[in-house]
Amino acid sequence: MNVAANEPTSEPHRLVYAHPADLRRASRTGDFAEQTAGQCPGALQANLVILPKDAADEFLAFAVRNSKPCPLVGVTDPGSPHLPMLADDLDLRTDVPRYRVWRHGELDDEPTDIADLWQGDLVGFAIGCSFSFEDALIAEGLPVRHVEAGRNVPMYVTGRPTEPAGRFQGPMVVSMRAMPPDAAIRAIVLSDRQPLAHGAPVHIGDPAALGIADVMKPDFGDPPVIEAGDVLVWWACGVTPQRALQAAKVPFAITHAPGFMLVTDLLAEGLTTFPTRASRRVPRSTT
Amino acid sequence: MNVAANEPTSEPHRLVYAHPADLRRASRTGDFAEQTAGQCPGALQANLVILPKDAADEFLAFAVRNSKPCPLVGVTDPGSPHLPMLADDLDLRTDVPRYRVWRHGELDDEPTDIADLWQGDLVGFAIGCSFSFEDALIAEGLPVRHVEAGRNVPMYVTGRPTEPAGRFQGPMVVSMRAMPPDAAIRAIVLSDRQPLAHGAPVHIGDPAALGIADVMKPDFGDPPVIEAGDVLVWWACGVTPQRALQAAKVPFAITHAPGFMLVTDLLAEGLTTFPTRASRRVPRSTT
Repeated sequence: MNVAANEPTSEPHRLVYAHPADLRRASRTGDFAEQTAGQCPGALQANLVILPKDAADEFLAFAVRNSKPCPLVGVTDPGSPHLPMLADDLDLRTDVPRYRVWRHGELDDEPTDIADLWQGDLVGFAIGCSFSFEDALIAEGLPVRHVEAGRNVPMYVTGRPTEPAGRFQGPMVVSMRAMPPDAAIRAIVLSDRQPLAHGAPVHIGDPAALGIADVMKPDFGDPPVIEAGDVLVWWACGVTPQRALQAAKVPFAITHAPGFMLVTDLLAEGLTTFPTRASRRVPRSTT
Repeated sequence: MNVAANEPTSEPHRLVYAHPADLRRASRTGDFAEQTAGQCPGALQANLVILPKDAADEFLAFAVRNSKPCPLVGVTDPGSPHLPMLADDLDLRTDVPRYRVWRHGELDDEPTDIADLWQGDLVGFAIGCSFSFEDALIAEGLPVRHVEAGRNVPMYVTGRPTEPAGRFQGPMVVSMRAMPPDAAIRAIVLSDRQPLAHGAPVHIGDPAALGIADVMKPDFGDPPVIEAGDVLVWWACGVTPQRALQAAKVPFAITHAPGFMLVTDLLAEGLTTFPTRASRRVPRSTT
């Protein structure tokens, strides 16, 4: 990871930016418009939700009441596209590689910047995602089968309701990773250390306990890879607020496009509370 | 737990000593000769193994090589019955409520003190046990079914070998606690924080993966209480070194009697390495 800060480095499968500021700059200039999985190892990546003030107030309450699927990492001042607690240079209008624009719950557009859509009453939310704890699992050599297979993680709508707030409600969505029992034990311990990346699992074992009829038929993502002897491990998923957002049919909303995350300067490991300016940040290489 | 330090206090089921020094003194004088589960909440309890120097050297290597079932908490100087790192007043000859004396692998006696058996070449080992992490589970309201049912924990000889050292070898023994999936997740996180009480589980789920044919027929302890939807959670067990000790048929050895543990002044939670004199100790009440 000690690479020249502004040069993508060659990794086994793809080019990887070492520092989030470089990836954000490349997103801003249009040089980078890919998914962010594997980018800037160690940096906290986040889901993005942008809403007009009136809906934003209700959404903030929804996130606070459902912190396992919606771990709040940052919130802007109304009208500000900046989140200095997550990165000094961060501009929500340009720094995410791809966005989704929603009108009345329907997908309207997938632009690579939203500068011309910005309004003075918009509030942006950064919500933790699972990429950083997957990094921790992979760093310990634990099998993350969908990554190994080059697939998207399988996600499922459960029978467990969220705690509603205003217009926002609906079922909890979970992601599932199958792994051998000893890896599952270690994955539980490691993910518990990253409460802003959904923390410890919400369930292990039987899908029926979550109201899931067929583990091989996820509602989102790709079918799982499950090997003999694997335990099914289920984590709360950031798709939960996205679904609640669509169901609420708010007149106008912007999110990141799935997999095209907001990459922050915060280090994923060790964050246990809403970060402050003094939080640990990804160090810039001096080489 | 803020009770007068030298008076047992009334708890729902039994008298409980608040401070380990008082329980040890009562063991020393013969006033206490019961099992120690539930005594001195928060204090690290330990398995005891005492061996002549030549066997002790091999046993020390065995424990180091098998730290999950044999987490070393303390070791005496040869000939010394004291373990000042665990408690200033501790005397291994009198402070355990009941002992077992072994000759050539056979149980010879179960005395309440071993003062007359002490020899100048004996080495004492304190090895972490599961009582302290069970305390942590109960303190969080997680179900510990064998405790609720007033039974002994079920223990099983597995098909997994230990790493041998000299005369000491044999299979790993595990204890099993069945609980709902969400409690199992929390139990994994909590027990991982107590590496000197066997740490995180070694397995979850299928008994067959450990070479266990019938979960309802443990090799030691009582049959388990398993409720619908429970996950089986398996921890390395301090019976592992006891079995290795018996199988080695060393001419002379002394252990604690099962359930009659060595109660130390160390706080169970937070110990991650072999303790030093500066380790956190159970505070004495000043009332």
